[in-house]
Amino acid sequence: MENGMKNWVFCDGDLPPHGDDPSFMGHEALMITNVSKLDAHIRIKVLFEDKEPYDRITLDLPAERTTCLRLDFPIGKEKYQIPFGQYALHVISDVPVCACFGRLDVRQTNMAYYSLAGYSF
Amino acid sequence: MENGMKNWVFCDGDLPPHGDDPSFMGHEALMITNVSKLDAHIRIKVLFEDKEPYDRITLDLPAERTTCLRLDFPIGKEKYQIPFGQYALHVISDVPVCACFGRLDVRQTNMAYYSLAGYSF
Amino acid sequence: MENGMKNWVFCDGDLPPHGDDPSFMGHEALMITNVSKLDAHIRIKVLFEDKEPYDRITLDLPAERTTCLRLDFPIGKEKYQIPFGQYALHVISDVPVCACFGRLDVRQTNMAYYSLAGYSF
Amino acid sequence: MENGMKNWVFCDGDLPPHGDDPSFMGHEALMITNVSKLDAHIRIKVLFEDKEPYDRITLDLPAERTTCLRLDFPIGKEKYQIPFGQYALHVISDVPVCACFGRLDVRQTNMAYYSLAGYSF
Repeated sequence: MENGMKNWVFCDGDLPPHGDDPSFMGHEALMITNVSKLDAHIRIKVLFEDKEPYDRITLDLPAERTTCLRLDFPIGKEKYQIPFGQYALHVISDVPVCACFGRLDVRQTNMAYYSLAGYSF
Repeated sequence: MENGMKNWVFCDGDLPPHGDDPSFMGHEALMITNVSKLDAHIRIKVLFEDKEPYDRITLDLPAERTTCLRLDFPIGKEKYQIPFGQYALHVISDVPVCACFGRLDVRQTNMAYYSLAGYSF
Repeated sequence: MENGMKNWVFCDGDLPPHGDDPSFMGHEALMITNVSKLDAHIRIKVLFEDKEPYDRITLDLPAERTTCLRLDFPIGKEKYQIPFGQYALHVISDVPVCACFGRLDVRQTNMAYYSLAGYSF
Repeated sequence: MENGMKNWVFCDGDLPPHGDDPSFMGHEALMITNVSKLDAHIRIKVLFEDKEPYDRITLDLPAERTTCLRLDFPIGKEKYQIPFGQYALHVISDVPVCACFGRLDVRQTNMAYYSLAGYSF
């Protein structure tokens, strides 16, 4: 679809520990880019292994802007804190956007990146 | 397709050694997310370089749940153990789902992540 | 689409520091491949979190050639220098091409790769 | 398309040095999986930055098999050696297949993985 898709699913969320260096914390992040000329109103649904999804996270992304959402901090207007453990994200936008997901792991002496394209529809 | 796809293929399976730290084992994992309102009944086929595929692995994934399947342990209701060596996975679901594949390699002092989107149809 | 797509979006640009080893510098790169028989005329738009996009970067990619564009150096005919901080790329080509994005991070003793497929339309 | 696609493009080939440990060599690899019931006859085209592509590499992949092609060694029936430097791959199959590309870099004390989905059509 032109400019992106309205739905993005990321299957492998699992927040790593922050580690000891505050300038270089282990984290996960969701990047969303809106290349269109219309502002995007976005809802994020968090799915879990063994409980109901949480679906009341909302945020706005202006036209022709990109955002990097730190997933280890409270997110959206509702300041929802994703708990530790396995989770998945379903990003739902009213206009087509693009998105990707990344993890920085600092559990060992040297960092490791984990990066994934999502499924979009 | 809305909510995902019914077929996912991951081409680069190759189980790494577990390593010495039981709290941080080398492994591969398959993450499957079901954002739909219908339970998913899933069959997994393991393909090899030089022998017939094994296709009798089954599992269920309830509606609006995600799962992380450790591929280095016996998987599915049939408790199938994937052997060491090159393999590929074909995930077949009766309702559309999303999936991704990851490897954590601890063969050296510091870990390395390997992450891949699959082909879906 | 045959031979690729005319639009590619990469959502997670964030130039890492170069580090101390000039033979192994931290960087990001955009790879574009033109498998078609037609030369490609490409425009790149850089999107930011809090200001208007910059969209006057152009380059040509001949038929049946690939290119690796270092994003930490001035890019395109206009020699535009991407500033530090979060950004996204929108690659627009007059003929279908393929593209991918990578980051080499050398902030710690050992490097880490970050690699991502883009969204294309 | 059912079972995969007939064309796969990988934009970021760049063979890393082998390094000093023969049991753990830096390399790139192309994984191709044929989940169909038909044998696949595959041609691989290597594209460069500044010279004509090389397109006479062929291989067969039987039905319901996967393969891992080491790209740092001579490939295909023609035993073509990819030179050092930037390259891209165009994989062309007569039946739909799936493919992915990976790099293991051992230039520093600890390895780094680089993994990428390809564009398919």
